[in-house]
Amino acid sequence: MPGRTEKSTQGNMGSDDAYLLTAAEALVRIRAGELTIEGYARSLLRRIDVRDADVGAWAYLDKDYILQQARALDKVPLKDRGPLHGMPIAIKDVIYTKDMPTAHNSPIYKNDFPKLDAASIILLRHAGALFLGEFKTRPLLLFKYSYGGLFSLGKTTTAEFAASYTGPASTRNPHNPSRTPGGSSSGSGAAVGDLQAPVAIGTQTGGSTIRPGSFNGIYSFKPTWNAVSREGLKISSLMLDTIGIFARGVDDLDLVADVFQLRDDEASGFQGIKGARFALCKTVVWPMAGEGTRNAIARAVDILRAHGAVVEEVDLPREFDNLPRWHNIVLQTEGETFFLPEHRTAKDKLSPQLVGYVERKAGYNRGAQLKAFDGIASLRPKIDEIAGQYTAILTPSVVDEAPEGLEYTGDAAFCSCWSALHTPVVNIPGFQGQSGMPIGVSLVAPRYRDRHLLKVAKAVGKLFEAEGGWSRNV
Amino acid sequence: MPGRTEKSTQGNMGSDDAYLLTAAEALVRIRAGELTIEGYARSLLRRIDVRDADVGAWAYLDKDYILQQARALDKVPLKDRGPLHGMPIAIKDVIYTKDMPTAHNSPIYKNDFPKLDAASIILLRHAGALFLGEFKTRPLLLFKYSYGGLFSLGKTTTAEFAASYTGPASTRNPHNPSRTPGGSSSGSGAAVGDLQAPVAIGTQTGGSTIRPGSFNGIYSFKPTWNAVSREGLKISSLMLDTIGIFARGVDDLDLVADVFQLRDDEASGFQGIKGARFALCKTVVWPMAGEGTRNAIARAVDILRAHGAVVEEVDLPREFDNLPRWHNIVLQTEGETFFLPEHRTAKDKLSPQLVGYVERKAGYNRGAQLKAFDGIASLRPKIDEIAGQYTAILTPSVVDEAPEGLEYTGDAAFCSCWSALHTPVVNIPGFQGQSGMPIGVSLVAPRYRDRHLLKVAKAVGKLFEAEGGWSRNV
Repeated sequence: MPGRTEKSTQGNMGSDDAYLLTAAEALVRIRAGELTIEGYARSLLRRIDVRDADVGAWAYLDKDYILQQARALDKVPLKDRGPLHGMPIAIKDVIYTKDMPTAHNSPIYKNDFPKLDAASIILLRHAGALFLGEFKTRPLLLFKYSYGGLFSLGKTTTAEFAASYTGPASTRNPHNPSRTPGGSSSGSGAAVGDLQAPVAIGTQTGGSTIRPGSFNGIYSFKPTWNAVSREGLKISSLMLDTIGIFARGVDDLDLVADVFQLRDDEASGFQGIKGARFALCKTVVWPMAGEGTRNAIARAVDILRAHGAVVEEVDLPREFDNLPRWHNIVLQTEGETFFLPEHRTAKDKLSPQLVGYVERKAGYNRGAQLKAFDGIASLRPKIDEIAGQYTAILTPSVVDEAPEGLEYTGDAAFCSCWSALHTPVVNIPGFQGQSGMPIGVSLVAPRYRDRHLLKVAKAVGKLFEAEGGWSRNV
Repeated sequence: MPGRTEKSTQGNMGSDDAYLLTAAEALVRIRAGELTIEGYARSLLRRIDVRDADVGAWAYLDKDYILQQARALDKVPLKDRGPLHGMPIAIKDVIYTKDMPTAHNSPIYKNDFPKLDAASIILLRHAGALFLGEFKTRPLLLFKYSYGGLFSLGKTTTAEFAASYTGPASTRNPHNPSRTPGGSSSGSGAAVGDLQAPVAIGTQTGGSTIRPGSFNGIYSFKPTWNAVSREGLKISSLMLDTIGIFARGVDDLDLVADVFQLRDDEASGFQGIKGARFALCKTVVWPMAGEGTRNAIARAVDILRAHGAVVEEVDLPREFDNLPRWHNIVLQTEGETFFLPEHRTAKDKLSPQLVGYVERKAGYNRGAQLKAFDGIASLRPKIDEIAGQYTAILTPSVVDEAPEGLEYTGDAAFCSCWSALHTPVVNIPGFQGQSGMPIGVSLVAPRYRDRHLLKVAKAVGKLFEAEGGWSRNV
């Protein structure tokens, strides 16, 4: 069986191996009648069967429901299918879904089942069945289970409320079960990294999308803050939380970006790596970078230059040095507000970290919150201007490869400043650390230049995957 | 029957007249055993029976459920009761409640029932029954209906998604049924103004709390943005939406502010009107002010000065003149993101105004959004500094008294800049327009000076209610 995803498109493949496909590849085959949605589902379920004990990416998974959905979707005539018809999605368990419980990895919400679809889920479902309205008048009983043409594989594990630094106990890095898959979107990163789902939805508040992207050797995309409706994503920090997307190729990120209607004001203008200009931003936390990340960045720069790009090291103005501290203050002070209901009603079931936010253990008052809030706000137009002078910013995704152990999900130091600045970020896999674990690097663009960034990421990703030195072994 | 609420505390009163009480007054009587919760509920229900055809404040009201809750609450021993035990709350129908449907005045969500309590509702319920945990082990079957010790009267009408300028067709101003109660928290304002509920929860994005407060002759309070968790309030604009509170006295606002844990960093320091310093901010939209508002502001200044306060007219720096335009741009461009799911799935059921947001009818792109977003952000610390030099800012609440007709809910011109600036605002009733309709004026404080503002509002409100010239006739 091929080790690299891009090879999966070569040669003949039965539905047995369909789990190897990216979503974009699978949708082509489904449309061409070469793959049934049920066959695709069964392939993914077999993969999950084989691997779930080792990886533990799922907080909720109902095999019968998956197959019910798949069979119902296969019955929909081609002409009535939406653009993502038959695309399986894994959804982080802090995002409300009408058809599955949402438990936030918190005993407070164990088996909680609000009958509500998050905005992102409504958009994804609808993209699976543009003609859903028609079906309501047809006797397609099974269809009621699918709530649209997309099929939801299950809910993926999360750190408590996507806010705790402690990972879900069950979830392991698919590339080495003794290491964390990162967090807080642990299950989304691990499921996609382990070929159990082609695409997953997660979130980022500090580094919860980019870090698991890097640790699991996949692409992960944090769009511009507020560009995708956060409705139905439980709040950890209003100013920081962003819906994130995980996939094994930029084509799949593009499919979801289309559905979320991410649109830049202007066309990209990107014409390829040759002649492109990248700003290498090591940022104020560079001293934290381990050998894996230092090598990955050095290799990335070499590859880009070898292909004709200019890479300039750019020092951000000194005021950006406040970002790590300001990000932490916003996180803690907004946490005081947003975890107050759980603290009030079930403090004993809330982790000490979140109790600490509500009880102001760090001592930050509302004045400190405002100073951080306003300070970050003043930097956003400045980073747009700096980033706008380059094709993209190149910057580390993580401190190093995924650390040993499952409890600590790793440091978000290299992600949190971009979360605060609201810029779009893509993790590009392709490099590896001292232990052979995957390492990615990040590309960053100005706010609302999401599609430009994806375009650049696709070209850069091709090079880094080919020449970065890491290959997927699972 | 006394016409003014404060008189309702005088003399003996049976439970028949309990609807006249503020919540603070009612809770004292309930605790003293002078009023049963069922008696209180029946009094409110009789008031609703008499007036509902004229006022139409309720989107959802289940009398049996109200009485079930009330009887269950009466059975709870005094020692087990939370601070708001027996306090009835009306809730705007854009805020999710586990025990009642939430329909957003949209045919898309008709009878939708997501089984989710908003953060604000969780906090309020819990305050009604601090010892709810205990009851789980007791055979108190009826209690399951109340989900806590607070009792939810019903859901109040709203403009579509709290975003449309068109009011709910059914809801009339209790002081004159040919006039609008304002919007978008139309039912919350009308229910409290008409003595059908002592306290209601609403929201504000432009002027949806302050304007109905003014139009219905009651207090309304928009806390600092983000000081109360917005979890479970459907998003219209992430940067603007704020939970609002309606009541007929500042004591009741204080009760709810306690439950929401609104805390200033520093004690107020306010020592009474004598010697206090108010900044009169007419703002850039002052030319829109009608005779009613001009008179109310003039009268307010006279009253404050007569009681020994200093009132200085303060012109905000010119850059604040951008606020009305920037507010509108944020509203429309965030609307593009947040109403996309409804547009995608049920465009024909969305009002033309909101369709226009999603389809960018006004032509604002993401660049315009960022300019407005960053521009407003740069003004927030500046208004804090200006407001911090005074006891409070005095500013109009509305253009004039509630206009004729039910369709248009009135202009938010005088509210929207404070919504954008995130400052706390209280509408103080007490004045009247040319047609005898109520008019209020606003007090504003720096962000997170909510409790200071309520303290000032209480003293100022006492004067304006006594000397402003308007008395409630309903």
